[in-house]
Amino acid sequence: MPSVESGAPVPLDRWFAEQATRVDRALDALVPPGDAPPARIHAAMRHSLFAGGKRLRPLLALAAAEACGVVDDAVIQAACAIELVHTFSLIHDDLPALDNDYLRRGAPTCHVAFGEDMAILAGDALHTLAFAVLADLPGATDARRMACIRLLAATCGTHGMVGGQVDDLLCEGVEIPLEQLRSIHARKTGELLRASVLFGAILAGADDAAQARLDLHARHIGVAFQIVDDILDVTSDAQTLGKPAQSDLRHDKATYPKFFGLEGARTLAEQSLDAALDALEPFGPAGSRLADIARYVVSRTN
Amino acid sequence: MPSVESGAPVPLDRWFAEQATRVDRALDALVPPGDAPPARIHAAMRHSLFAGGKRLRPLLALAAAEACGVVDDAVIQAACAIELVHTFSLIHDDLPALDNDYLRRGAPTCHVAFGEDMAILAGDALHTLAFAVLADLPGATDARRMACIRLLAATCGTHGMVGGQVDDLLCEGVEIPLEQLRSIHARKTGELLRASVLFGAILAGADDAAQARLDLHARHIGVAFQIVDDILDVTSDAQTLGKPAQSDLRHDKATYPKFFGLEGARTLAEQSLDAALDALEPFGPAGSRLADIARYVVSRTN
Repeated sequence: MPSVESGAPVPLDRWFAEQATRVDRALDALVPPGDAPPARIHAAMRHSLFAGGKRLRPLLALAAAEACGVVDDAVIQAACAIELVHTFSLIHDDLPALDNDYLRRGAPTCHVAFGEDMAILAGDALHTLAFAVLADLPGATDARRMACIRLLAATCGTHGMVGGQVDDLLCEGVEIPLEQLRSIHARKTGELLRASVLFGAILAGADDAAQARLDLHARHIGVAFQIVDDILDVTSDAQTLGKPAQSDLRHDKATYPKFFGLEGARTLAEQSLDAALDALEPFGPAGSRLADIARYVVSRTN
Repeated sequence: MPSVESGAPVPLDRWFAEQATRVDRALDALVPPGDAPPARIHAAMRHSLFAGGKRLRPLLALAAAEACGVVDDAVIQAACAIELVHTFSLIHDDLPALDNDYLRRGAPTCHVAFGEDMAILAGDALHTLAFAVLADLPGATDARRMACIRLLAATCGTHGMVGGQVDDLLCEGVEIPLEQLRSIHARKTGELLRASVLFGAILAGADDAAQARLDLHARHIGVAFQIVDDILDVTSDAQTLGKPAQSDLRHDKATYPKFFGLEGARTLAEQSLDAALDALEPFGPAGSRLADIARYVVSRTN
């Protein structure tokens, strides 16, 4: 591990690793062991939860809280709730009746490893657990817990993640206008990234102005994230991605590279990054972790 | 409609119909119309939600609140949340990968009518919506909203409904002891019936002693409900049940009639009813709706 001078900021990759470990430890404490009855469902939940995800969403929550000056146990737990929901949505999206994907984070998807029945129920259990975690955020006021629960419920519902997934499925093989592509992604992936950032802001007690800036930041990150996802789906391979490449082509989905070409899409991602960084300006150095993550989102290779 | 003398109690079937209509109206306001985008998911949610369910769980919540002296809008909304969760669990349980049932409440199951993808997502959306409803219970304190959210999360999780469903699936075709049959049913169906009753108690501000009595009542009702379910599965037909009969036999599941014979099972159901009615004794006449429902649970034919 590289030595760091006292007072110097921890380098990004080390901060990433340290915080991801912190989140993993908290997640490990939230899900019963894989041999605790009913063992098969706990094993299925853990299979997908600990398959080596990047913990991008939890790290966004922690970085947003850091931007607002407070990172406490409530933020860690809320970050875990986001990852539980993210994992639930991946498990259900991967099912044969939906995207029918067999590889995720470099491992067999949940239904391949545990059967469709357990995958459906493991997703349901993770979904429920996220709300249980938010209802018990340690040291948080009931008002903040409720704010997080309301935000998560709106994020997951038919005007959020589920709605985006529905339209994504219904638009396979259909020519759609750019506005609809944007709308699908804003709901399918953008809303949960936004909730991650806002959880950090809410639990750190950010005022309305700070929340609005972070909301703006998160929306730009959401767009950048999806554009880069679309680019990587074309330019990368399963080994690097940890999931099948060319998935959009196979499913005949609209993507940013289809609309703008690869170079045009890259330019758009950079523009979203610039806008995301601009939104952080009032936070000064406290916003540097969010800025680091934003740059990572655009430069990542998987 | 039969005329009722002023002051005389409303007859059970009329109370049932009136309260079910009240719940249906509230449910109708909670789920976007079937043509509101994304239309297909809202239509799928409504298909299962308004397929003519008996609203037993919501009525338990209302009757429990009545036993404690307060029935307000918060109780109605909480009753709806329970029905949303119940419907979500039916949709997922009916999927081909789980019980593979094609008929429910006399109508095609959600995946038969809308496809497996929409059924999975409709279940997810109803699941989320239940928590959204509880987070916004009108006129309730945050403390009571949180109590309901915590109870629902515990009810749905791997130590509750999902866990019961997992063990039920894993025990198909396996000889299990009576204790395990009881444990599976207590979690798979009992917990949600219990949450229904406790929602009414919590939102009516019942003290600990009253909640404990209602908890006991609900546990006995849960047992009686399941025994009768098992009996009807053997003795009734799809026309009457609104779902395929002989389902337990087809899935080679353990049932109360298998353990005790039909007559033995009927006796057990009557004993659970007696115990459930005993638990209501401190409530006097205020508990009469719960008592009515309890008798209905044991005498029902579908």
